[in-house]
Amino acid sequence: MGFPGYGAPVSLTDAKKIAAAAEVDAVKLGLQMVIVVLDSGGNLVLLHRMDDSHLGSLYMAEEKAKTAIKFRRSSKDYEDMVAKGGVHLRMLSAEPVLAIEGGLPILRDGKIIGALGISGGTAAEDGQVAAAGLAGL
Amino acid sequence: MGFPGYGAPVSLTDAKKIAAAAEVDAVKLGLQMVIVVLDSGGNLVLLHRMDDSHLGSLYMAEEKAKTAIKFRRSSKDYEDMVAKGGVHLRMLSAEPVLAIEGGLPILRDGKIIGALGISGGTAAEDGQVAAAGLAGL
Amino acid sequence: MGFPGYGAPVSLTDAKKIAAAAEVDAVKLGLQMVIVVLDSGGNLVLLHRMDDSHLGSLYMAEEKAKTAIKFRRSSKDYEDMVAKGGVHLRMLSAEPVLAIEGGLPILRDGKIIGALGISGGTAAEDGQVAAAGLAGL
Amino acid sequence: MGFPGYGAPVSLTDAKKIAAAAEVDAVKLGLQMVIVVLDSGGNLVLLHRMDDSHLGSLYMAEEKAKTAIKFRRSSKDYEDMVAKGGVHLRMLSAEPVLAIEGGLPILRDGKIIGALGISGGTAAEDGQVAAAGLAGL
Repeated sequence: MGFPGYGAPVSLTDAKKIAAAAEVDAVKLGLQMVIVVLDSGGNLVLLHRMDDSHLGSLYMAEEKAKTAIKFRRSSKDYEDMVAKGGVHLRMLSAEPVLAIEGGLPILRDGKIIGALGISGGTAAEDGQVAAAGLAGL
Repeated sequence: MGFPGYGAPVSLTDAKKIAAAAEVDAVKLGLQMVIVVLDSGGNLVLLHRMDDSHLGSLYMAEEKAKTAIKFRRSSKDYEDMVAKGGVHLRMLSAEPVLAIEGGLPILRDGKIIGALGISGGTAAEDGQVAAAGLAGL
Repeated sequence: MGFPGYGAPVSLTDAKKIAAAAEVDAVKLGLQMVIVVLDSGGNLVLLHRMDDSHLGSLYMAEEKAKTAIKFRRSSKDYEDMVAKGGVHLRMLSAEPVLAIEGGLPILRDGKIIGALGISGGTAAEDGQVAAAGLAGL
Repeated sequence: MGFPGYGAPVSLTDAKKIAAAAEVDAVKLGLQMVIVVLDSGGNLVLLHRMDDSHLGSLYMAEEKAKTAIKFRRSSKDYEDMVAKGGVHLRMLSAEPVLAIEGGLPILRDGKIIGALGISGGTAAEDGQVAAAGLAGL
């Protein structure tokens, strides 16, 4: 399939770098966000909830990251499928898929070492902050 | 984003006022309803199930209120998104979102102190009774 | 077996009488409590969380009431079993049993019409307030 | 009963201070730990999993913190009850109680603003690192 393999888990040090970069970007945009980093086994490494972000962003950020790690692709890939309609709506029947932008795999040396999930703004804003977070690594 | 902050939790006394107003309105409409009030942390403060309401309304009322408190907006906002179709159907992949009218945030002095969820009639009836409940505060 | 049969469900009106009596007693004792009334099918009819009661009492009160309705006896009966030790500790392996005083069946005309659960004080205080609640019916 | 009331939620800034102090202490002891901070509503604010800590510590740390916030006391209070045996074993029937040292309420100005949960070492080590974390605030 050409999917990258699962590698060693992201370190807490690297997760903190990603979170710090995401937080800087969120503050710049005037947004309150939840930032979640999972390792390559889908387990939590870091969660930061910025003051006065939506309580519901806790679920959203974690599930976006889980979507990215479980299926080794961006959660936006599933959003794009849903947007196509028709048979693609079948993805809505899969409980562990959150089809909203803001979840990205974290890669190193061609391997997936974890995933990042962001929630708190619009789907597009969440995607932008997630990209800024990965750029911090 | 302009979302109101989360404030101190709604009191049981205020929750009872809201429920009483909602019950009066439900009786007027000849409907049997479940009324749920959550605090600003998303925890239950009050639940009343009127005689002979749907057993399933227990879930519906609580999840509408949770949607309202977790994302600081009416559950009807999500219903409206779903109605637009296309990419907006992505909200159906988010488990904690119940995209049906009848869930409203409870505000005081510009802060969210809780949320109200109503279920038992049509979506529009649920929305009307929820509005009547908030007016009782 | 001699267990009373399951009867028609307790009404919201009666549940409110029980809750009011329990709340009066809790205030008298200077306690903050969660009061839960279930119907004869084990479904919620009423939940009141007094201001500043433990968040964890939400679970405790509901599970005590569920224990009482599911097994048609006081939750204290299971507490007494646990106190005996030995083989009786097997009750700790049963997830739906909360072996702590404060859950009571609600009877009318020899039938079980629901159950009451109280949590917020010591086990003995919870039991006392539950008894006061039933006396309000 | 003299329990402190629930106050405004702990900030992410304060949660990071607590986590940093706990991590310094864990490194000093040569331990890998999971650190969880919840707010006064029982919702996650911060989670850090140190490299090579037990995967199972994710559950343990979060549940210890939940025990502390839900019942406004140290999780060690429940450990001590269990140690007494007899009727006190009833606490083992309560699913939301994790009766193991390492969960502490976070107080400010006499109010509970959140809770800290630590897991990764022995119960006593978890308790020590939790105390070190709170001292960082």
